[in-house]
Amino acid sequence: MKQVDVDVAILGAGTAGLVARRSAEKSGARTIMIDPGPLGTTCARIGCMPSKLLIAAAEAAHHAQHAEIFGVNASVEIDGKKVMQRVKSERDRFVGFVLDSVEKTRARGNFIQSRGEFVDEHTIKTEDGTLVKFKSAVIATGSSPFVPPPYRKLSKKVLQFNDDVFEWNDLPESVLVVGTGVIALELGQALDRLGVRTTIVGIDGLIGPLSDPKMLRAAHNVFEPKLDIHTDYTLDLIEETDNGVHIEFTDPDGSTHKGDYQYVLMAAGRRPNIDKIGLENLDLMKDERGKLVWDSYTTQIGMSHIFLAGDANNFRPLLHEAADEGHIAGKNAASYPDVFNKHRTTSIGIVFTEPQIALVGQSWREMNCEENRVGTVDYGKQGRARVMNLNEGLVRIYGEAHTGMLLGAEMLGPRVEHTAHLLAWAIEQKLTVSEVLAMPFYHPVFEEGIRTALRNLESNLKMARKPGDSCEEFGPGA
Amino acid sequence: MKQVDVDVAILGAGTAGLVARRSAEKSGARTIMIDPGPLGTTCARIGCMPSKLLIAAAEAAHHAQHAEIFGVNASVEIDGKKVMQRVKSERDRFVGFVLDSVEKTRARGNFIQSRGEFVDEHTIKTEDGTLVKFKSAVIATGSSPFVPPPYRKLSKKVLQFNDDVFEWNDLPESVLVVGTGVIALELGQALDRLGVRTTIVGIDGLIGPLSDPKMLRAAHNVFEPKLDIHTDYTLDLIEETDNGVHIEFTDPDGSTHKGDYQYVLMAAGRRPNIDKIGLENLDLMKDERGKLVWDSYTTQIGMSHIFLAGDANNFRPLLHEAADEGHIAGKNAASYPDVFNKHRTTSIGIVFTEPQIALVGQSWREMNCEENRVGTVDYGKQGRARVMNLNEGLVRIYGEAHTGMLLGAEMLGPRVEHTAHLLAWAIEQKLTVSEVLAMPFYHPVFEEGIRTALRNLESNLKMARKPGDSCEEFGPGA
Repeated sequence: MKQVDVDVAILGAGTAGLVARRSAEKSGARTIMIDPGPLGTTCARIGCMPSKLLIAAAEAAHHAQHAEIFGVNASVEIDGKKVMQRVKSERDRFVGFVLDSVEKTRARGNFIQSRGEFVDEHTIKTEDGTLVKFKSAVIATGSSPFVPPPYRKLSKKVLQFNDDVFEWNDLPESVLVVGTGVIALELGQALDRLGVRTTIVGIDGLIGPLSDPKMLRAAHNVFEPKLDIHTDYTLDLIEETDNGVHIEFTDPDGSTHKGDYQYVLMAAGRRPNIDKIGLENLDLMKDERGKLVWDSYTTQIGMSHIFLAGDANNFRPLLHEAADEGHIAGKNAASYPDVFNKHRTTSIGIVFTEPQIALVGQSWREMNCEENRVGTVDYGKQGRARVMNLNEGLVRIYGEAHTGMLLGAEMLGPRVEHTAHLLAWAIEQKLTVSEVLAMPFYHPVFEEGIRTALRNLESNLKMARKPGDSCEEFGPGA
Repeated sequence: MKQVDVDVAILGAGTAGLVARRSAEKSGARTIMIDPGPLGTTCARIGCMPSKLLIAAAEAAHHAQHAEIFGVNASVEIDGKKVMQRVKSERDRFVGFVLDSVEKTRARGNFIQSRGEFVDEHTIKTEDGTLVKFKSAVIATGSSPFVPPPYRKLSKKVLQFNDDVFEWNDLPESVLVVGTGVIALELGQALDRLGVRTTIVGIDGLIGPLSDPKMLRAAHNVFEPKLDIHTDYTLDLIEETDNGVHIEFTDPDGSTHKGDYQYVLMAAGRRPNIDKIGLENLDLMKDERGKLVWDSYTTQIGMSHIFLAGDANNFRPLLHEAADEGHIAGKNAASYPDVFNKHRTTSIGIVFTEPQIALVGQSWREMNCEENRVGTVDYGKQGRARVMNLNEGLVRIYGEAHTGMLLGAEMLGPRVEHTAHLLAWAIEQKLTVSEVLAMPFYHPVFEEGIRTALRNLESNLKMARKPGDSCEEFGPGA
């Protein structure tokens, strides 16, 4: 059996793994990457990039169909084959950049395209028969979709994942989307707008990552007239048919629904790929619930020589966070047992629906009644948004009463991908709400809506809580 | 003759005047506003708001017509009457908010709708026969379009201004736009996209507010294939015809052009309205060129009791700056002879063309070869921009070599109205380029293009200038 000796072994050639390799090599470590394929990052291959491509087509179709208000009448025809052609060819182009990077690693001999498994504290055995001896390792194995039990009986023919969507040669007639998270909402709305008969079902009343009850209510009000969405369904029946699936389900109000769909698009969350990599052969610290003890500042598991980066740790499963984690994991793996903390930047999460959803910094979930205050803007009345007929949504911004600091926001509205950056940068610099209000705001811009919310927050920050004040206004109770 | 005694007289009921009145009254001053009408601010009535409404219709038409790349085929018909109907009714709604505010002032008796003129240091005489005795005054009389001499012979029937455009009941067949500044570009491109045969002529090779030669070159490359634009024309003939005007002109390359247009849209710059308000009856400090000595931090003219705010001072003729200036002018007029400096925020200027143009902070014009460095991004290659088929443009960001500070930017590209805010806020907080690069950037977003330019700038900031290095790379020569 072939044996390879390295300083740092990296399981997974996605974003976190590729950055970890660069970072470890920069620190002087000899590395090897192990990945069974398919190669190309989650983001480029099946995630953020192809979904934005599908959304771009969907927005083009939707806005052409709804230009009448401006005095522009368009009769629109959607060519499903051409839609998918562009999605795939552009996707292939983005994936190509990633593959180039992997190829360079392979050419230098530090890449094994095979499944790897820890067999002891310092050995990974690959399926193709190599023993990799390492001093430290980075696990960057990504994540896979979770399938709720009732759907597991469905055949691959009808049970589709986001991976499959981006292989379609044409748009289907109909899709049942399971889930109301980021992927479900983005792809569900995009397919709906592209003329695919789409029903979205989810549980717990959730819409995207929103946690603020008022935001959730606003999101329901915004999306329910647009989409056939059921956010708290009870599944009564799901069965495969000759042409797809048949579903029957009940809403909380007792209304029953049934329908037939060509595909089920499974988007009910993703789980880290750490169950089949031999973790049981490593002595890793776990908490009382049996979960790995993991530090987001070092990416280290417990005090061990094993580092966990990217979607595989399920901390912030986003490309830019995976890159940050890959960087620190690679550096720390190379310098182990010396490990360094890396500052984690203010979190941003964006859902590219229309209107968009974003979470910045601390969300409502992290507030408390005594310490926090909320400022609000209704984008239904916002000037520029109204000019562009994009006037819907709500933004709630959170601040800290005794310091006046800006803490975070939950956002639903036009162009919030941009205003989320503005707020995240302000939070990252530890600005007070009043300091943010002293910044320049042009006119007429979407940013002025954010100023409205900040002014409202500034005035609320001065108010003492009165007994009986709603926690939805001031943050949740203890 | 009726006489009114006040502390602060305010000439002009636009944005600067309205804010000045509030600000002066907040300081305890008795005020009067004098404005002959038409009432409503420049921004709401004939400026930023209605232009954005016309642009919204133009973008709807353009994107519907160009959705084929996404697999979306639309046949588009533009209903000129409906286009103008929405522009006007929404514009009227925005103007209504302003008029409400004026009406409240009128109801309280502090508003004279008449032309006012200074007759001595403490008296304004109005055309309708009132003598206003004041302790101090705010001039906020706005600006008017400049008409180059050859066009002055044209009748009102064909010589149109932006005011007139927003009164049209239908789109015209053709328009000759004179000017290549903000208004000319915004309205010219919008009309062109709405199917109006449009030619734009200007001088000095200028495009919007850009000053960086590389930016101007990029803007020429971007706009020339889109628009019939001639940025350095020599007028050979302009004459009124039965159906409009006939023009003949020559380009710098010697090529001659002739054409007939229904209207001339005059957008060759605006001049402060300070020539017919009796300034000659005041003892105001002037510089050697005969220009009023004016302080942007206090809005004071010389050391006098006269303050000048908004477009009337031609410093930064933008709504948000007019509001800032109105605030300080009203406060200082009330507290005169005590006057206060107000911090002026980082400047932002945006042209709402597609792609958009923006200037932030210090522009290329203010750089110098020794001290400054440039970082660049080509939006033609930017990921998200490409996804949305908006991939064109160039952004150049300027920094200071010996401090590493971010100074300013000239921008041409998709969604730069948003990234301009991000950069302006960073400059306002006196961040270094490296500090800005430590901020969070999501993926895939337009903001990542800005990061590319900032990374390029960060590396260029470390480079010493070598003899023979181009000033276009490092800032202009002394």
